[in-house]
Amino acid sequence: MNPIGQNVHFITLSTPDLQAARDFYVRGLGWEPLLDVPGEIVFFQIAPGTVLGLFEAVKFQQDLGLDREAAAGPSGLTLAHNVGSRAEVRSVVAAMEEAGGQVLTRPEDGAFGGIFHAHVRDPNGVIWEIAHNPGWRVAQDGAVVFGDLPPDDSVS
Amino acid sequence: MNPIGQNVHFITLSTPDLQAARDFYVRGLGWEPLLDVPGEIVFFQIAPGTVLGLFEAVKFQQDLGLDREAAAGPSGLTLAHNVGSRAEVRSVVAAMEEAGGQVLTRPEDGAFGGIFHAHVRDPNGVIWEIAHNPGWRVAQDGAVVFGDLPPDDSVS
Repeated sequence: MNPIGQNVHFITLSTPDLQAARDFYVRGLGWEPLLDVPGEIVFFQIAPGTVLGLFEAVKFQQDLGLDREAAAGPSGLTLAHNVGSRAEVRSVVAAMEEAGGQVLTRPEDGAFGGIFHAHVRDPNGVIWEIAHNPGWRVAQDGAVVFGDLPPDDSVS
Repeated sequence: MNPIGQNVHFITLSTPDLQAARDFYVRGLGWEPLLDVPGEIVFFQIAPGTVLGLFEAVKFQQDLGLDREAAAGPSGLTLAHNVGSRAEVRSVVAAMEEAGGQVLTRPEDGAFGGIFHAHVRDPNGVIWEIAHNPGWRVAQDGAVVFGDLPPDDSVS
């Protein structure tokens, strides 16, 4: 048995401008908070059993005892949302831009077989990849299934 | 209808030392990769429909067109894993330390009602919170349920 189950229950992101982030996700994208504590944190459920938390940056760092570091946004990560078609990539990216997101790469073919994607930065600095990936699916039981990927190619 | 469904399908982390990360999660913690592409990326399923990807740092940045920035590890985020008891917090933290994790805060009571937690940094710089939180549970259908939280207190 593994000492730690293979589950992430919370992904918590340092959030320099909590109100801007709330405006983007709640007002702009229509997401429903699981819990919203003004000035502190907003939680969204983003998978069965898993929650994304946007935690006010100064409090985030205090919580970790990192008060010597500047209160910055997250870096070195991306979040991805997959959709069912290339057209849907375009419409989601348009909706995110309309909601205040910054489009970093317009919808285009990716480096490997069949993926079509774009990158959008939220007001908090988090980079989202919006993708149509014909080689990816989620089975009825929640299992993620990858199709055949070319072994030598970049995977994103 | 929301323009973008409330789901995160991939969480991808910039990984300066992919082999060290693989050793930690696979050899140290016994996690099973969904897909492992040497020198590129390791994927782990961490919730129904959701995958954590450890993406080699230079390739991560090239993929985003960020090659002007130094290839760094992720910052400004934490991942959390919740367990069923205070004893289990201790045993998971011990296992992570044994696997090469760096314990930042030893298991202790948190700032609000009943939570008992510790923080461990993985070889990639990702900070995990290991917590027993009696106010949190996952319902049979995957819905996350929070109990009553004191309104004035810090939430982690």
